[in-house]
Amino acid sequence: MNTPKSENIVWSATGVTDDDRRRVLRQRGCVLWLTGLSGSGKSTIARALELRLLQDRHTAYVLDGDNIRHGLNVDLDFSPAARTENIRRVAEVAALLADAGLITITAFISPYQADRQKAREIVTASTAPAAAPRPGHPFFEIFVNTPLAVCEQRDPKSLYARARAGLIPEFTGISAPFEAPTTPELVLHTEVNSVASCVAEILSLLNHNGIY
Amino acid sequence: MNTPKSENIVWSATGVTDDDRRRVLRQRGCVLWLTGLSGSGKSTIARALELRLLQDRHTAYVLDGDNIRHGLNVDLDFSPAARTENIRRVAEVAALLADAGLITITAFISPYQADRQKAREIVTASTAPAAAPRPGHPFFEIFVNTPLAVCEQRDPKSLYARARAGLIPEFTGISAPFEAPTTPELVLHTEVNSVASCVAEILSLLNHNGIY
Repeated sequence: MNTPKSENIVWSATGVTDDDRRRVLRQRGCVLWLTGLSGSGKSTIARALELRLLQDRHTAYVLDGDNIRHGLNVDLDFSPAARTENIRRVAEVAALLADAGLITITAFISPYQADRQKAREIVTASTAPAAAPRPGHPFFEIFVNTPLAVCEQRDPKSLYARARAGLIPEFTGISAPFEAPTTPELVLHTEVNSVASCVAEILSLLNHNGIY
Repeated sequence: MNTPKSENIVWSATGVTDDDRRRVLRQRGCVLWLTGLSGSGKSTIARALELRLLQDRHTAYVLDGDNIRHGLNVDLDFSPAARTENIRRVAEVAALLADAGLITITAFISPYQADRQKAREIVTASTAPAAAPRPGHPFFEIFVNTPLAVCEQRDPKSLYARARAGLIPEFTGISAPFEAPTTPELVLHTEVNSVASCVAEILSLLNHNGIY
């Protein structure tokens, strides 16, 4: 799909197969892509899910908007172009984690439909070239569909208040768009269901799709 | 260490501890950073080591220069600045994989001492902010010290021939520098030792450092 800058790249042969990883980890690598407004509950659900999976002796890891911007994406701001690059890199890293066999949970606002579609393609596409094709991995788009009014009332980081006061430019839901998913694998309603209930819904999704 | 572009970032609380991951995976997350010339044997050793670890029911993953440039770093060329950004991003991803509990093996030429030092800092530093500090993880610099003449004789990808013919600019060892590690944790001599022997040396290193 992508063409590297240099032609002088040869794919390395890999000795480890996807089945080998499944046997060792007793699960199938995949990506759970949580999308929703700031304050919708993405990170809370992601962390609770991660903890529950670890308690069940599965291997999971959360990639989080707040965390990854201190590291890999420290060079990116919140402009539309930088948001797109942010999501592209997160998707590439999520694909690597899934390829390593992990149940990978991403918790990013990811407001643009096109970016989420690109993320899905990156994760599910098998990378073809020559010796070491990486198989595609399952991708589940999970819409944490908490209404703006509820998110704004929660406002755990006081971001909505600051955005309303004009102190934060391009804030999703206030001064920047959120394009709701049209065909997500799962929709969560945090204003009526508990965190534990949302986690249970995701576990059921994993189970029905043969992840473990 | 790094300062994100926006101040509007709050660290997420994590429920899963490093000890939880160790218990589930029966190992400690770490980074094995292989450095050496093209053709020195980095990828071959990395893949053989990964396979051996999986066979021993450990969880390992290779980040490879040839592979990652098709994905995360598809936008980077081989100029000095792009090589530095390449290594920075790989180090950030390796730190995430180590944080997820994996024995992470990187196989990149990584010719600059300063870049490798930065990689070590990224992996070993605990990221401090507030709720979810990530602990630092062990970093082992492994110098695959195969002489240039041997690498050039192997030339498995015919890259040296093309570089000598002037077809590849900035080729490490020919037209771009390789700064040898001064204090690596391990030095491998592939011109006298077999792949299996090199793998055994690395396993011994892991064992002596309490990785498993």
